Amino acid sequence: MVVDGLIRRLDAINQIGYKENEGITRLALSEEDERARDMVIRMCEDLGLKVRKDAVGNIWARKEGTDPNLPSVMVGSHIDTVPNGGRYDGTLGVMAAIEVIHWIYKKEICHRHPIELVVFVAEESSRFNIATVGSKALAGNLSVSKLKSHKDANGISLYDALLQRGYEPDRLETAILPPEKAKAFVELHIEQGSVLEKENIDIGIVEAIAAPIRLQIQLIGQEAHSGACPMEDRRDALSAAAEIILSVEENGRKESKHKTVATTGNCKVFPGAMNVVPGEVYLYIDIRGIDLQSMLRVLNAVIDHTEKVCKKRDIQYTIEVLSQERPVLLDRDLMEQVKQNCRRLGLTYKEMPSGAGHDTMNIAKIIPAALIFIPCVGGISHNKKEEVHLKDLENGLSILFETIISLAK
Amino acid sequence: MVVDGLIRRLDAINQIGYKENEGITRLALSEEDERARDMVIRMCEDLGLKVRKDAVGNIWARKEGTDPNLPSVMVGSHIDTVPNGGRYDGTLGVMAAIEVIHWIYKKEICHRHPIELVVFVAEESSRFNIATVGSKALAGNLSVSKLKSHKDANGISLYDALLQRGYEPDRLETAILPPEKAKAFVELHIEQGSVLEKENIDIGIVEAIAAPIRLQIQLIGQEAHSGACPMEDRRDALSAAAEIILSVEENGRKESKHKTVATTGNCKVFPGAMNVVPGEVYLYIDIRGIDLQSMLRVLNAVIDHTEKVCKKRDIQYTIEVLSQERPVLLDRDLMEQVKQNCRRLGLTYKEMPSGAGHDTMNIAKIIPAALIFIPCVGGISHNKKEEVHLKDLENGLSILFETIISLAK
Repeated sequence: MVVDGLIRRLDAINQIGYKENEGITRLALSEEDERARDMVIRMCEDLGLKVRKDAVGNIWARKEGTDPNLPSVMVGSHIDTVPNGGRYDGTLGVMAAIEVIHWIYKKEICHRHPIELVVFVAEESSRFNIATVGSKALAGNLSVSKLKSHKDANGISLYDALLQRGYEPDRLETAILPPEKAKAFVELHIEQGSVLEKENIDIGIVEAIAAPIRLQIQLIGQEAHSGACPMEDRRDALSAAAEIILSVEENGRKESKHKTVATTGNCKVFPGAMNVVPGEVYLYIDIRGIDLQSMLRVLNAVIDHTEKVCKKRDIQYTIEVLSQERPVLLDRDLMEQVKQNCRRLGLTYKEMPSGAGHDTMNIAKIIPAALIFIPCVGGISHNKKEEVHLKDLENGLSILFETIISLAK
Repeated sequence: MVVDGLIRRLDAINQIGYKENEGITRLALSEEDERARDMVIRMCEDLGLKVRKDAVGNIWARKEGTDPNLPSVMVGSHIDTVPNGGRYDGTLGVMAAIEVIHWIYKKEICHRHPIELVVFVAEESSRFNIATVGSKALAGNLSVSKLKSHKDANGISLYDALLQRGYEPDRLETAILPPEKAKAFVELHIEQGSVLEKENIDIGIVEAIAAPIRLQIQLIGQEAHSGACPMEDRRDALSAAAEIILSVEENGRKESKHKTVATTGNCKVFPGAMNVVPGEVYLYIDIRGIDLQSMLRVLNAVIDHTEKVCKKRDIQYTIEVLSQERPVLLDRDLMEQVKQNCRRLGLTYKEMPSGAGHDTMNIAKIIPAALIFIPCVGGISHNKKEEVHLKDLENGLSILFETIISLAK
């Protein structure tokens, strides 16, 4: 397929939030995010789509089919980013969907089912420490109290941010998607890993989406003067944290044969002065996999090790489970259909798990949903260096086009 | 000695920068620090002392002796604090000196030598990552370029902060103390450790002051998605940091028989998001002792370990030595004089090293200087819980009074 239009769309939207040498920052519901969402709406309206926003700010853009009573074929992703993120994570799925609809118009392809683009709000957890907000709302897996409890670094709650942007968080339940309204959902995304690239495969057909278990561990030792407090009298919260960080990694490695991974993403030290033995440390840990038992083995090993380390070092601790989700298996029939389309297009493909969470995992709980990967260079993502080869953009656009057409016909 | 006056002075000054449950924060050259320094000046002027400030903002308050041509007896400490610090670190030495001078006036004690209180500027390194600024200036161990290169978290340099407070950093050399102008310097301080308390001893007479070697280690791995990047493909800067933090502790413990200690005071993680494998980490390390060879063994072991860990993990690193000072031996004659005064007052005493750095270590390089410790509860310091028993305040005030009188007579 001709890929120029997709590239123009990506170039246009990725001006928003871009800074030289810093990549793209469009945090959920930020000024930049909102400007990019306005651009998406303009693109959709230019095509002639009917656009609306739901109570939590998901954007819906609908192209009617020949039979308006049939359930719609949904396609979409998100356009918010992590801090200093890249051009493709989420954004590709939205821009490719718009381009597919553009081509359906242009080629005057007849389809019975309506086609609906959905741009999910707040997919990234970077701002509010909660991911895939928009698709959670569709799946009825969100509450007003949850919107109020998740706050950003400035203390602004997700609830207040939604209000501020003119949405209606109190009418959350009106965003729930009745299953009979949609036939299927398809999301195109970059792999964010290097499996496809290493194995030189065109398309990844996701069989299951890993779910994160997220922990916050607080360690309370005793602040002391770094010069005057003898080594044997110390209750150093950072040294305890170091043992736990290594345990997270070790247990992730142990379970990697089950495709489980474990990460300590942040370590905050208080008071954090050069001349003070750290008195308090917070660790933020993310355990993911598609095998729940394997994930729980990592979780339990990290908890056990934390207890052991803290006992040995006379450190107090609390462990808070911030989220604990289950891996989601995707629809085998839809996967089969995507495979057929790959074969028709002459693309190589592979069934694979998704280590990252995606909106698809929430939608898959209510309707059949497919997640399609294309390779990204070096597996690099959540990073300004995120890159995709031209041929892979082309392949992604083609497989999305074929899949939407085959579902909507 | 009657201790009420000292307590009143401590209460008064420690209102400044105090917040309930947070302790006292008077960062060097902050608004709070400046207000506290104004209060010191008022206290001195109320006694009738002649007050001046030098080019870097050290406060000098002079009581003439009967022979104005004799060199002065200097006494003092500092009143800036670490973030969320306590009531006594530094502040005790200044308030006790003022109280001693008050009693010398009150008892109309005749002394030949002038007595000069000096309140050193920016003793704590918390704000500008450089300690004992005021006394370094007196010892001629500071340069304008150094003042410009040390910046706080907001990018304000020590140089600019001095200018902003109305001092004259460009005239730094005018602050140098000509050795012939002063006979001796005495500083009273809390121990900031628990040796005196554990051994039930009244007074610590410091024989040597430990010097810090300070390092910043930068570790550069590769940011990656915490779900999609397999364990075996990771270059996790935080896991590498954890190994180094444990090595700092281990090597500090190994050398603790030589009274060396080693601390990682802070660990900054970038980007620090829950769903990103950390790409970059900064560690801030402080190695202290009174045995330079022992300190260097820790330094070299930490450097070797960093190299090994980074090689194994394919992590790039830089090690910057922020400061490297030598331990300072104090004047034996002065120590002997303090001991005599202890015996006269019926106080138990002990020769000991100081693990923490103090202004005394800079002054000791140009004139005879003494550092006198009293116990603090639980050895806790650099902390809002810093506490001193009443009898120890009394003992501290008495020994300082006796020592100043015996030197100034």
